[in-house]
Amino acid sequence: MVSAPRHRGDLTADISEDGLRSDGARTDAAPAENDTAPAGNSAAPAGNDPEPAGNSPEPAEIADLFYALCGRRRDVRGQFTGEPVDDAVLQRILGAAHAAPSVGLSQPWDFVLVRDPGTREAFREHVATERDTFARELSGEDAATFSKIKVEGILESTLSVVVTYDPDRGSPAVLGRHAIADAGLYSVCLAIQNLWLAATAEGLGVGWVSFYREPVLRALLNIPDRVRPVAWLCLGPVTHLERTPDLERHGWRSRLPLEAVVHTERYPDS
Amino acid sequence: MVSAPRHRGDLTADISEDGLRSDGARTDAAPAENDTAPAGNSAAPAGNDPEPAGNSPEPAEIADLFYALCGRRRDVRGQFTGEPVDDAVLQRILGAAHAAPSVGLSQPWDFVLVRDPGTREAFREHVATERDTFARELSGEDAATFSKIKVEGILESTLSVVVTYDPDRGSPAVLGRHAIADAGLYSVCLAIQNLWLAATAEGLGVGWVSFYREPVLRALLNIPDRVRPVAWLCLGPVTHLERTPDLERHGWRSRLPLEAVVHTERYPDS
Repeated sequence: MVSAPRHRGDLTADISEDGLRSDGARTDAAPAENDTAPAGNSAAPAGNDPEPAGNSPEPAEIADLFYALCGRRRDVRGQFTGEPVDDAVLQRILGAAHAAPSVGLSQPWDFVLVRDPGTREAFREHVATERDTFARELSGEDAATFSKIKVEGILESTLSVVVTYDPDRGSPAVLGRHAIADAGLYSVCLAIQNLWLAATAEGLGVGWVSFYREPVLRALLNIPDRVRPVAWLCLGPVTHLERTPDLERHGWRSRLPLEAVVHTERYPDS
Repeated sequence: MVSAPRHRGDLTADISEDGLRSDGARTDAAPAENDTAPAGNSAAPAGNDPEPAGNSPEPAEIADLFYALCGRRRDVRGQFTGEPVDDAVLQRILGAAHAAPSVGLSQPWDFVLVRDPGTREAFREHVATERDTFARELSGEDAATFSKIKVEGILESTLSVVVTYDPDRGSPAVLGRHAIADAGLYSVCLAIQNLWLAATAEGLGVGWVSFYREPVLRALLNIPDRVRPVAWLCLGPVTHLERTPDLERHGWRSRLPLEAVVHTERYPDS
């Protein structure tokens, strides 16, 4: 992997350039600043790049930090504290989401920040009815297990972030979407994962609530018919993040080993 | 943000526990190890957590490292070198993808590693015809701009990772999917973004090719009808990552400011 260390060197340099100012202050819009830098600045070999600052982590540690972050991230239901979220932190998290890749650079996402108690209570009521709808599908052990599982932290979390998909953004000719209409929808999900990991890195928790009907959420937030709600995310400080997903802790389902989902050359015969 | 520093402390501790072994060796399966640790280990207040190792980055730096990574990530077309990818690195990257959140813990993704030149050449031929199909939709300046844009690096990259969605995984009762059928598809996209960021952290490039018809890809890789191909990802070492997305560098489209996509309480009137 000749280029890996070289590129890691670039990334380490980037961090000292973009991630931390020389005075050590946070750079609130690091992704945006980095993204809007002139093109080609990183085209030079690493030898021409500035030396990493003395306090920068070792290149290999950058990947390890990311893996630890992936392992740390949880879908939070019961650990929200409701404490305030600093606006600079929220802006950094949304900036990370907005730095996600998107088909044809369409950036078809929108983020609606919902703090209003009335709106959140109304949504929570709807989620409760959908929880009951799902519960009625279950029987026996599944029903008993599900009855113990909390599916949302809408009112306990500090705020909600509703993420939507606008297929008209960048249209009519969205580069890369003509053959796969859902490619725009996929882009919105990539932004959601950036948001989720950023919030985790900032010490916050995120919980994706999916027990809702899209028309109900459209009506609640004035979302036009052409725009699709993709996620209701609860966000805020947490007492802690569990080491194991709630559904595994409660015995609903266990995670698969990696080998079960990795295949070579062709999809396995089923 | 009372809890943020506390939780960041947890994360810093996690990194010394899970991200780097005491001997400094890489922990190849950090996310999996972290995910399968006994529940509740992180439930204790930070005061009970081990002190971060002396060489751990400052907590705030963890978030800055992540933002730099988000800004660094690019959708690569023309910078692949074709150099080998170490299998341990590939396993770490796939492990990060497999550590993504999924609706009902269904983990409905599969990853097909495609190195066979014949398969990649056949796919590239199909992509070329779809590129022409899209080009015929364009006229004037758009056509001229698109003619200069490279849309894939299938043969130049080291390997391809085809990511698929299996709706039967965890069915019939997938917790959280009864009201939103696409929630499983969304989960697969979250895994793709973990993969993309992990590859970037490892010093590799990723390029998502979307100029294809799903039935063609199904036939090429033996993918059953019930399973949906979601992405063809080119992966491998790169000479460098551009600072600015190709589509912006070539004048196809410019990125929106964050303020344009963030709204308060309700979706804006259009």
